[in-house]
Amino acid sequence: MARIVMKFGGTSMAGIERIRGVAARVKAEVERGNEVAVVVSAMAGETDRLVGFCREAAPLADPCEYDVVVASGEQVTAGLLAIALQSLGLKARSWLGWQLPVHTSAAHGSARIEDIDTVAALAAMAGGMVVVMPGFQGVDAAGRITTLGRGGSDTSAVALAAALKADRCDIYTDVDGVYTTDPRIVPRARKLDRITYEEMLELASVGAKVLQTRSVELAMKEKVRVQVLSSFSDVPGTMVVDEDEIVEQELIAGVAYNRNEAKVTVIGVPDRPGVVAAIFGPLAEANVNVDMIVQNIAHTTRKTDVTFTVPRTELVLSLDVLARIRGDIGYEEVLSDDAVAKISVVGVGMRSHAGVAVTMFKALADRGINIQAITTSEIKVSVLIAEEYTELAVRVLHTAYGLDAAA
Amino acid sequence: MARIVMKFGGTSMAGIERIRGVAARVKAEVERGNEVAVVVSAMAGETDRLVGFCREAAPLADPCEYDVVVASGEQVTAGLLAIALQSLGLKARSWLGWQLPVHTSAAHGSARIEDIDTVAALAAMAGGMVVVMPGFQGVDAAGRITTLGRGGSDTSAVALAAALKADRCDIYTDVDGVYTTDPRIVPRARKLDRITYEEMLELASVGAKVLQTRSVELAMKEKVRVQVLSSFSDVPGTMVVDEDEIVEQELIAGVAYNRNEAKVTVIGVPDRPGVVAAIFGPLAEANVNVDMIVQNIAHTTRKTDVTFTVPRTELVLSLDVLARIRGDIGYEEVLSDDAVAKISVVGVGMRSHAGVAVTMFKALADRGINIQAITTSEIKVSVLIAEEYTELAVRVLHTAYGLDAAA
Repeated sequence: MARIVMKFGGTSMAGIERIRGVAARVKAEVERGNEVAVVVSAMAGETDRLVGFCREAAPLADPCEYDVVVASGEQVTAGLLAIALQSLGLKARSWLGWQLPVHTSAAHGSARIEDIDTVAALAAMAGGMVVVMPGFQGVDAAGRITTLGRGGSDTSAVALAAALKADRCDIYTDVDGVYTTDPRIVPRARKLDRITYEEMLELASVGAKVLQTRSVELAMKEKVRVQVLSSFSDVPGTMVVDEDEIVEQELIAGVAYNRNEAKVTVIGVPDRPGVVAAIFGPLAEANVNVDMIVQNIAHTTRKTDVTFTVPRTELVLSLDVLARIRGDIGYEEVLSDDAVAKISVVGVGMRSHAGVAVTMFKALADRGINIQAITTSEIKVSVLIAEEYTELAVRVLHTAYGLDAAA
Repeated sequence: MARIVMKFGGTSMAGIERIRGVAARVKAEVERGNEVAVVVSAMAGETDRLVGFCREAAPLADPCEYDVVVASGEQVTAGLLAIALQSLGLKARSWLGWQLPVHTSAAHGSARIEDIDTVAALAAMAGGMVVVMPGFQGVDAAGRITTLGRGGSDTSAVALAAALKADRCDIYTDVDGVYTTDPRIVPRARKLDRITYEEMLELASVGAKVLQTRSVELAMKEKVRVQVLSSFSDVPGTMVVDEDEIVEQELIAGVAYNRNEAKVTVIGVPDRPGVVAAIFGPLAEANVNVDMIVQNIAHTTRKTDVTFTVPRTELVLSLDVLARIRGDIGYEEVLSDDAVAKISVVGVGMRSHAGVAVTMFKALADRGINIQAITTSEIKVSVLIAEEYTELAVRVLHTAYGLDAAA
């Protein structure tokens, strides 16, 4: 007998027919002799509808009341799943965030789970009952409803699994696992049986959004074994586990890409101490999320060029900020390009192997793909290239690192 | 300074534009120096949508989980109204049923309010804050969400007004008050300035559904002054008050009609003790709501005819029950007619005036309208007629009792 938390996303909960399908999956798990708790998202589209109401009512809605409104989406699916489970002959009931309770910080709209009271849930599960909990929501110390921020249901599931000391946390989604890269670009992409928490985090940060980043961080901290699998098929998924659990570590786990960045180059910046801070300080104050930063070597001109990337949606804002501070900085010119893509290779194997980055640069160079910027972390190398080369670069790297499935 | 509960129905809450309109009305009341609590319904159509989900998930959904699902509609509008009020510069917050809390019985789906804890609400109102409470919902002793049954938000509002000892409970709806009869039938129908609780109850029971019956019963019991008025105009509404408050009592408050009944006549019933119980017992067991009952005088044949009315939707069921018990009763024949209408005149003045019923019978006879059955209560006379005469009968009676507005 195992204790399992199952989490179903919005696509899996979109309408009663699908909720019935979820109930059937839960029933199968119960019939294997397992204790089961289920965490559910709102129906696909519902949270957007509710957020839309709040924004329409006031662009800066009171976060406490915003949470009252948007938490209702998961309340509805939790009740409906309990009904669907009962109609399959299972014992089931819903516990809302304030009922269990799921204690969170008071940061409404982006609260952090502090503690989940598991007394009621453990007693119910021991009695053969399926516990259904709405994801994304909790209650603060003042007794008001909180929400965890978009995508928070993954985090709810991992937190519940940790609190229940569950053997596994199965995250059901609309893909059947984590792939070495996007199968729409590389048909020979392989589904990974296992991936480490660290790799999953880096992949999420560069655009391969299967799990919400916070949920992976929490799983890593609490050592929760997470499985990503599909609601719509019966094949095994990908286990996200500790590095120790992976005996035969591949050099590279995957190749990711991100087309949501734009490049900004500030030309002719006076090369004096503090000038970089004078650029990035005002951008940070304007809440621009600067990603890659490259500062070219200063020439004898005592001038330097600074290149960085920002989310495309923040490009106009960034250029406004730069125009405003031109007098303070004294730069010559700003160039920008929103037709760029960031390509990353991720793998914990990098730690013990030299030459991983060189393989990347060489493979790209062989195809005439120019690298505009480079950043690295301990287990990731990212390069910025012209957007039109995205698919080619991903395919070339997938092959170069030996990730292609056998034909 | 007065303490006022304002209640807004689903039509008034249907969409953000209308919620903004509600917020403006609340603001006006606050600016008059009043303490205000607001009770809201779900957006029009939302409760039907949520009930539909539950029914689709299981025709007999667990009432506890049903309540979790359907209570969310009012949760959403409570949060949105608080946001809209804040954006007008008012202090406001929502208290959900479990937060205030609104203690109810555990009869999920049709719970009764037992007690409303007003400590938080009174403190907030004393501090100039508008209290927003979702109607229709509460929490039982086990800490689970309950709902009061359809239309329960009127009852929530009256109960809150009673608990807060409010000076007035204003029920905003899509009509601007209670009329002497349906203005679609009688253009010269008059809006009543005042009506007694008893009259309101009788009018509701015969089809003039402005307020939910339970809410009027509660208002009568708790002596809550209720005003019915429109969300969409600025004219004064109708006050529902105690009989003592109406100095110059009219003989008749209004003329109501109900086309949702069907007539059943059981012919040739043996005239022996207990035979009537033998007919109506099985109907009651089948949950048929029998309304009017007329038993004709037995002739020398030792046989009698029994006529009664049932809701049209229950006619087929009623005929099934009668067919099943034919052997036991030994009647000759059953006739039914679903083209009937019940016309009622209601007024507390009837208590002290003879001849009210005679005026009715005579006015109908003058137009050749045949009366098929008659029932009376202390303040109501109802007759059953052929449905095709409905409008004519209502107009004739409206004139006969002197209710027509001056031309």
